[in-house]
Amino acid sequence: MDTILYGVAYYPEYMPTDRLDKDVDLMQKAGITVVRVGESTWSTWEPRDGEFQFSWAQRILDRMQQAGIKVILGTPTYSLPTWLYKEHPEILVTHAEGSAPPLGDPYLPTYPGVASPGGYGVRQNYDFLNPDFRKHAERIIREIVGHFKEHPAVIGYQIDNETFPTGISTKYTQAAFVERLKQKFKTPEEMNKKWGLVYWGQLVDKWEDLPPRDGIVNPGYKLEWENFQHDIVTDYLTWQAKIVNEYKRPDQFITQDFSGGVHTNLNQWAIAGSLDIVSANTYFATQERLRPNEMWLTGDLARSLKNSNYLITETNAQSIGWDSRSQYPFYPGQLRLAVYTNLAAGANMVEYWHWHSLHYGQETYWRGVLSHDLEPNRTYAEVSRVASELKKLGPDLVNLKKENQVAILFSADSANALRYMPFSDNVSYMTALRQMYDALCALNFEPDFVPAGAANLARYKVLLVPPLYTASDTVLQQVSDYVRDGGQVVMEFKSGFTNEYSTVRDTMAPGPLRDAAGFHYQEFTNLAKPEKLTPDAYGAGEQNAGSVWQEFLITDTAKVIESLDDPYWHFPSVTRNKYGKGSLTYEATYVSDVLQRKIIGDVLSAAGLTGADQSLPTQVKVRHGKNAKGWLLHYYLNFSGIEQAISYPYQDGADLLTNDAVKKGSQLRIKPWDLAIVAER
Amino acid sequence: MDTILYGVAYYPEYMPTDRLDKDVDLMQKAGITVVRVGESTWSTWEPRDGEFQFSWAQRILDRMQQAGIKVILGTPTYSLPTWLYKEHPEILVTHAEGSAPPLGDPYLPTYPGVASPGGYGVRQNYDFLNPDFRKHAERIIREIVGHFKEHPAVIGYQIDNETFPTGISTKYTQAAFVERLKQKFKTPEEMNKKWGLVYWGQLVDKWEDLPPRDGIVNPGYKLEWENFQHDIVTDYLTWQAKIVNEYKRPDQFITQDFSGGVHTNLNQWAIAGSLDIVSANTYFATQERLRPNEMWLTGDLARSLKNSNYLITETNAQSIGWDSRSQYPFYPGQLRLAVYTNLAAGANMVEYWHWHSLHYGQETYWRGVLSHDLEPNRTYAEVSRVASELKKLGPDLVNLKKENQVAILFSADSANALRYMPFSDNVSYMTALRQMYDALCALNFEPDFVPAGAANLARYKVLLVPPLYTASDTVLQQVSDYVRDGGQVVMEFKSGFTNEYSTVRDTMAPGPLRDAAGFHYQEFTNLAKPEKLTPDAYGAGEQNAGSVWQEFLITDTAKVIESLDDPYWHFPSVTRNKYGKGSLTYEATYVSDVLQRKIIGDVLSAAGLTGADQSLPTQVKVRHGKNAKGWLLHYYLNFSGIEQAISYPYQDGADLLTNDAVKKGSQLRIKPWDLAIVAER
Amino acid sequence: MDTILYGVAYYPEYMPTDRLDKDVDLMQKAGITVVRVGESTWSTWEPRDGEFQFSWAQRILDRMQQAGIKVILGTPTYSLPTWLYKEHPEILVTHAEGSAPPLGDPYLPTYPGVASPGGYGVRQNYDFLNPDFRKHAERIIREIVGHFKEHPAVIGYQIDNETFPTGISTKYTQAAFVERLKQKFKTPEEMNKKWGLVYWGQLVDKWEDLPPRDGIVNPGYKLEWENFQHDIVTDYLTWQAKIVNEYKRPDQFITQDFSGGVHTNLNQWAIAGSLDIVSANTYFATQERLRPNEMWLTGDLARSLKNSNYLITETNAQSIGWDSRSQYPFYPGQLRLAVYTNLAAGANMVEYWHWHSLHYGQETYWRGVLSHDLEPNRTYAEVSRVASELKKLGPDLVNLKKENQVAILFSADSANALRYMPFSDNVSYMTALRQMYDALCALNFEPDFVPAGAANLARYKVLLVPPLYTASDTVLQQVSDYVRDGGQVVMEFKSGFTNEYSTVRDTMAPGPLRDAAGFHYQEFTNLAKPEKLTPDAYGAGEQNAGSVWQEFLITDTAKVIESLDDPYWHFPSVTRNKYGKGSLTYEATYVSDVLQRKIIGDVLSAAGLTGADQSLPTQVKVRHGKNAKGWLLHYYLNFSGIEQAISYPYQDGADLLTNDAVKKGSQLRIKPWDLAIVAER
Repeated sequence: MDTILYGVAYYPEYMPTDRLDKDVDLMQKAGITVVRVGESTWSTWEPRDGEFQFSWAQRILDRMQQAGIKVILGTPTYSLPTWLYKEHPEILVTHAEGSAPPLGDPYLPTYPGVASPGGYGVRQNYDFLNPDFRKHAERIIREIVGHFKEHPAVIGYQIDNETFPTGISTKYTQAAFVERLKQKFKTPEEMNKKWGLVYWGQLVDKWEDLPPRDGIVNPGYKLEWENFQHDIVTDYLTWQAKIVNEYKRPDQFITQDFSGGVHTNLNQWAIAGSLDIVSANTYFATQERLRPNEMWLTGDLARSLKNSNYLITETNAQSIGWDSRSQYPFYPGQLRLAVYTNLAAGANMVEYWHWHSLHYGQETYWRGVLSHDLEPNRTYAEVSRVASELKKLGPDLVNLKKENQVAILFSADSANALRYMPFSDNVSYMTALRQMYDALCALNFEPDFVPAGAANLARYKVLLVPPLYTASDTVLQQVSDYVRDGGQVVMEFKSGFTNEYSTVRDTMAPGPLRDAAGFHYQEFTNLAKPEKLTPDAYGAGEQNAGSVWQEFLITDTAKVIESLDDPYWHFPSVTRNKYGKGSLTYEATYVSDVLQRKIIGDVLSAAGLTGADQSLPTQVKVRHGKNAKGWLLHYYLNFSGIEQAISYPYQDGADLLTNDAVKKGSQLRIKPWDLAIVAER
Repeated sequence: MDTILYGVAYYPEYMPTDRLDKDVDLMQKAGITVVRVGESTWSTWEPRDGEFQFSWAQRILDRMQQAGIKVILGTPTYSLPTWLYKEHPEILVTHAEGSAPPLGDPYLPTYPGVASPGGYGVRQNYDFLNPDFRKHAERIIREIVGHFKEHPAVIGYQIDNETFPTGISTKYTQAAFVERLKQKFKTPEEMNKKWGLVYWGQLVDKWEDLPPRDGIVNPGYKLEWENFQHDIVTDYLTWQAKIVNEYKRPDQFITQDFSGGVHTNLNQWAIAGSLDIVSANTYFATQERLRPNEMWLTGDLARSLKNSNYLITETNAQSIGWDSRSQYPFYPGQLRLAVYTNLAAGANMVEYWHWHSLHYGQETYWRGVLSHDLEPNRTYAEVSRVASELKKLGPDLVNLKKENQVAILFSADSANALRYMPFSDNVSYMTALRQMYDALCALNFEPDFVPAGAANLARYKVLLVPPLYTASDTVLQQVSDYVRDGGQVVMEFKSGFTNEYSTVRDTMAPGPLRDAAGFHYQEFTNLAKPEKLTPDAYGAGEQNAGSVWQEFLITDTAKVIESLDDPYWHFPSVTRNKYGKGSLTYEATYVSDVLQRKIIGDVLSAAGLTGADQSLPTQVKVRHGKNAKGWLLHYYLNFSGIEQAISYPYQDGADLLTNDAVKKGSQLRIKPWDLAIVAER
Repeated sequence: MDTILYGVAYYPEYMPTDRLDKDVDLMQKAGITVVRVGESTWSTWEPRDGEFQFSWAQRILDRMQQAGIKVILGTPTYSLPTWLYKEHPEILVTHAEGSAPPLGDPYLPTYPGVASPGGYGVRQNYDFLNPDFRKHAERIIREIVGHFKEHPAVIGYQIDNETFPTGISTKYTQAAFVERLKQKFKTPEEMNKKWGLVYWGQLVDKWEDLPPRDGIVNPGYKLEWENFQHDIVTDYLTWQAKIVNEYKRPDQFITQDFSGGVHTNLNQWAIAGSLDIVSANTYFATQERLRPNEMWLTGDLARSLKNSNYLITETNAQSIGWDSRSQYPFYPGQLRLAVYTNLAAGANMVEYWHWHSLHYGQETYWRGVLSHDLEPNRTYAEVSRVASELKKLGPDLVNLKKENQVAILFSADSANALRYMPFSDNVSYMTALRQMYDALCALNFEPDFVPAGAANLARYKVLLVPPLYTASDTVLQQVSDYVRDGGQVVMEFKSGFTNEYSTVRDTMAPGPLRDAAGFHYQEFTNLAKPEKLTPDAYGAGEQNAGSVWQEFLITDTAKVIESLDDPYWHFPSVTRNKYGKGSLTYEATYVSDVLQRKIIGDVLSAAGLTGADQSLPTQVKVRHGKNAKGWLLHYYLNFSGIEQAISYPYQDGADLLTNDAVKKGSQLRIKPWDLAIVAER
């Protein structure tokens, strides 16, 4: 890409009247350069089994081409046509009214498409393995992509939409799961042993005796089923990508749009493997609560999936609206600030969801750029302003490259296994990960995400490890080797406790991590309330505390930094162990947010990574990167309603937005909810 | 009717021993004049399929006739006999254990008959459209009414009992619903368009492809299903009324007993159309929490349904008891006060539920006049006192006529559509309506209720409009015309936003109301917490605040009265627009209770409706009306445990209860939980 | 038994590797004398239908015998083999995801084996009446017991494990229930009358018309179903005991392990009738929250079931772990203190659950003596210390006999009927019982439990009666006779209100208790908040209050002690009635915890039962008993982290743990979480 794309999801078929020309005129006038179309409307493409309609879409693509607006074309598989449901009702999987989704991601807001009562009407609640569904889905994809592949407006394809597994057992998933187990374990005896099915007398003698998922409480079975569900989605999307690849032009890309955040019910890296570029949908709180953390969490993850730039396929326009009670439009300037917040993390496109506001359907209050009256408004005006800036600056901002020195090790297995065996009502794996992420954000560090088991740890100086509860010996050895070879690790409690089957190790905890960590333990306790630590080695004051959990560490080679200050237990809460050329800092308790920031800051400082970025005012955030021309860019973003002044510490440059020169050491003033992009060119 | 009826629901068949004679003696001694019998006991009337028993009821009716006690005879259709369930189990509809009723009315307490686990044992959970049910129900109605129609004690018939729809999809309801849609839309294309089924690709190509209600999230479908459910009940009751009408004597009436409050899951006006007189069951909090509001809300609605007097078929005796944890018997005097509170609103009968207290079954703690020991008690004594007063005063109190100047416009469609798309967790349509109602109550104004779309608005000087979210152009035009022709309207936010399909209008909000309202808007925000308004035009002080919602009004002709006092938004929160001969006061936010009272009071004052009633002590409530003799009656009711003194402002009269003269301007003292009825005769 | 048994549940089949020899060595070294084996592993005994494996168990028993460790052998029926589920899936009963167990005991923690989603995977969710289940269960029991009955290590058999009813209606339970009703009522008419099925028209004309349990709200039906469920379990265990009895040696015993506490969904006395000795599983809070109350509640109940000593088959080792969020290992000394706490109540054995910590399965965090690393640890060390003490002291401590003067009358029927008709959200029958129990504990009195209807009341001087809501005339007459003959009763509100069908009596409350109680009442009220009583007859100060409920007592012969201090109601809240040679103290309200202690203390004092035990420091608890040698033993237990000093008031003795002499009147110092056992020998 040679510039930033800026646009909207566009559903002319949803409009109450035909206003294609008026809409495209308005888009052109605003400066919009890309639209995403077609992903929601199988029944418009194919109103009856085997009868296809293309003229409506032809007209849209032609009109876009004429206006110079690029198009991302979606495959429409996320919603079943009513005729297909009527023909094959078993395609749909349902669950009891009001029940949580079986694979509910604690970090993912409950979505009505998943959490609503079962039955036709919510979307994407189908059996991905149903052969009738696959047959019809394949045909509609081939028809659409085959028909439009040569259209000049089409720059790429989105396959399906925010795909998640259903978690539900069906005839087809049960058969495929047994097949998977046969491949994995070869014999039922091996499975019995690895999962410990002898417990409560649940040994499986013949594969066909395997009970379905429904009532299972065995953690090994649950984790395997979870990963099986992930793989169902990966396989399904790979299958779609393969079909599209048979048709698409070399200059066109394939993408899929992940919903925002970090997901524990998908294998995002595996899915990304079959995509040309990753997309993400990022939604976040606005008004007084606008912060970069959600956008950057989504962006850092998206960027890490292929170690490359990514697209924002959806983001807030006027409101996030399937909850009609959460209407919080941007304050003036905030929409613009959000666009640059995404670009600062490496986004090459920002698309709103969506152009207009729906007049019917579940998402009536998920309001787009235009209000329901479909006339220009305050949001349209701010979009126009941003578009005009990007028209000029896009080539300087696109393809921003990063060389981050810090990474977070992400383990979906640990998150899921800790969901089966939580250590707290209030703190989960994702809470702990998020605490580390937010600490980095507060310290103005941008991390990459690395999946547990990835081989490229050595490129990072510092590795943050949320509770690595479930991991194979190999994965733990990688972490250990990383330390030995000079890496700095900050690791949280419960790491190393179970193997890849979520079976607890029968060696002294923390198992294979013992040498690198420099301690062992046999016991642990929950903490009924926060407890003070001693000494206050980091100057955390009142916040020098742990809560939720405390392991009874017995140090081998590690140095004790802080310990529990309790009448009965005085075990180490924070330790550091030098191991080989590196060190491992361990938190044997859930430290306070403040203490976490201090501990991580201390490790970053020891690694020589801290500098001027750590002295900015709290509400000013900074991100860096190098553009295609080799310029170093510094984004300074003001997340407050108050003007902020900073002392600019880098080489002389200029603010791309104002063209004002910015000298090293000079004062840079940033207006409320505004920003500067200083380029060293 | 020529006097007030006073009595009880009576279930001699529920008694542990035969005590008909003893009960009737006690009733006669107390002065009870009416009983309701027979509505709960199909299996007593017809213990085996096709075998009927009348002698038990004959004995009761004869005994009542002998004692001069009138009888209302119920059709027994609300509970299925076990043999009928055994023969046709599919008559029963069930829902998952613990789930809320599908059409749950947020204003209606959860009732075990609806909310309990499905299965036989709870009542009224049957498919109203099941032909086997209808066949048997028709036969038992014809048998009973045919058998007893000439009995002199019978003054009327109650059909079924507090009938509500189940909301559940069955073979029969699904077929009837498709038929309804065919009639309404003619073609699937028209339905697709009106409901926007193109959204999420849910277009229906053939009627038979219409998916059932279960998983549907489309608001248009949901609203139509909701009204379909209302009509099922209306049709069912009309069908019962038609059958009874074939038999009943001209001097006998047909009634149905609505449960208390205002219902959004029934079309009460339509049902009332097939009744001779409306009945209502009014239950309310007692002891320190005794207030008239619940009784009057029920009464004002009941009176408005046919613009006539009504009956109270059920009200608290000792306790409201399907919740055995809520036993709060009346303080001395409160039972009597409650009777007159009902009469003051236009009731012509007050019947307790019920005579005795049940020894078994779900309602064991819904205690009647007699305690479980079945002996006279404190309640019986107070009932006797009231009966003795009514024997004397009944002819002066019956048929009280009202000419209210204020009405509340009620829109069940708005309530339901806002349930699908709520603007708040805490405030619903009914909360907003209730806030307006309580403001009137605090101001001592008695409103009528008018259903949205009714043609008789012109008879009122002031019209209060809770959020009229869902309404056709015609309905909105009626309101607009009402203002133009001189009406005063107080209207709440979100009015005019969606049409009759709950589809958002694609014109500038508030759509067809724009001229009358004098403003337009494109945007709105939720308010995360209450915010101050400015200026304090009504003197509401600390309570000069809005919460929950704020529309970004841009005034055309309206005058801004108060605006949001927020760092970013300064939009008008209260406006008034002169339009034609009238005015429309609009609340763009959810104003505080105090501010609502002030705003409404101000409009009432401007309409020339305020006077001495607005100067009474807070806990003294007043109601007026004209009796058959043309006397103006003034009820002064003391809802406190403290004696109250008022200055009587009307023409010279006399307190009917004491016969004391009450001169204009004289001081009238009312004892704790006591009252005066001053008649200008 | 001739000494205290001390041991663990042992599951060598659950171990990740074969370590039988190592485990037994460790046990032997520690001094463990008993293990429980085999109850969880049907699929290990019988991996395929009809193929049996004994060698694994033979090896364990032989090894134990060699080490001098005794064995309790379990029947493995609590978990179905997968092949049996595959062959007969209808054996399993399921209930909706997340729903509470139908017969959920409010005093029983929700257990995942019961409350988890239905389906294979949770345990014990089978239809006890399924003939295929019974056939296979009988065969495996006969195989195991037949095979091992002569093994010298086996001292007894445990049948099944913590067996509870499922509450769920199946083809077989429905048929058996109808059969039971036929036996009980002879005709449907009689059932209709006793249960009041005439209410809501639910008369049953033919037995086959009886609707299933699912939707039933009738309290009589519900109570009968509840007791039917109890009897299913009793019959099932009796059937198992009968089978085992055909094989077992005379020196072997049969037991069953009740889960801790007092159960309202079992008939524990009836089950105990088919056991040689009762076992109980006692779990409790530790660390700062360690108190004897839970252990003693369980122990007093277990001892009362057969009026004899009992076994603790399971108790906390490191943690109670199916909730992985509740890891609270003992403070140093607490594990030891807990052992003696159980012995002080009459336990003859203490077994931990369990030897090791599971590496997989639902109970991974229910940690045993060994941690997951399977090496000796802090807990193992404390176990070894206790074992060593018991080796010496066991013969002096075993078979401790009690002659308690106080009993609590327990009525499961009342608990269940009050669950259908609760008087409070916060206070249940079990809350009220527990308040009385805790008052006794605070006063250092050890009660027995007596089931309502038992004939042996006369052996107690004082009888505490929690709300005896549901009881036959006969049961009430027993209580009345007990008072008349000299007993002292403290009785709570709602007693006598319903008969054995939970049908309210139609006589003046409290029915047959009226003479003994000396009052009657017709009315009652809930109390919305706590209310003061007057006068402060017991010196309860601020706590001289009642809440939740107040009956409107009218005294006949009773003396009023305290009354409600309310503007409207002044009814007696605490009364005492002399009747015959005894007295009945009645609480017409739910008195505060402090007031309850005062009232009970006052009655105990009047009965001449108080003494030095009532002057101990709050956190020192005492229990007494006589050992087989006739020595009087006094256990003084310090439930605090602070050393306590007491003045020893009994005859000269010696502390068995230290052999120090303890003179009457001398000061006895007890270290934190420590104890003394003073023997008058």
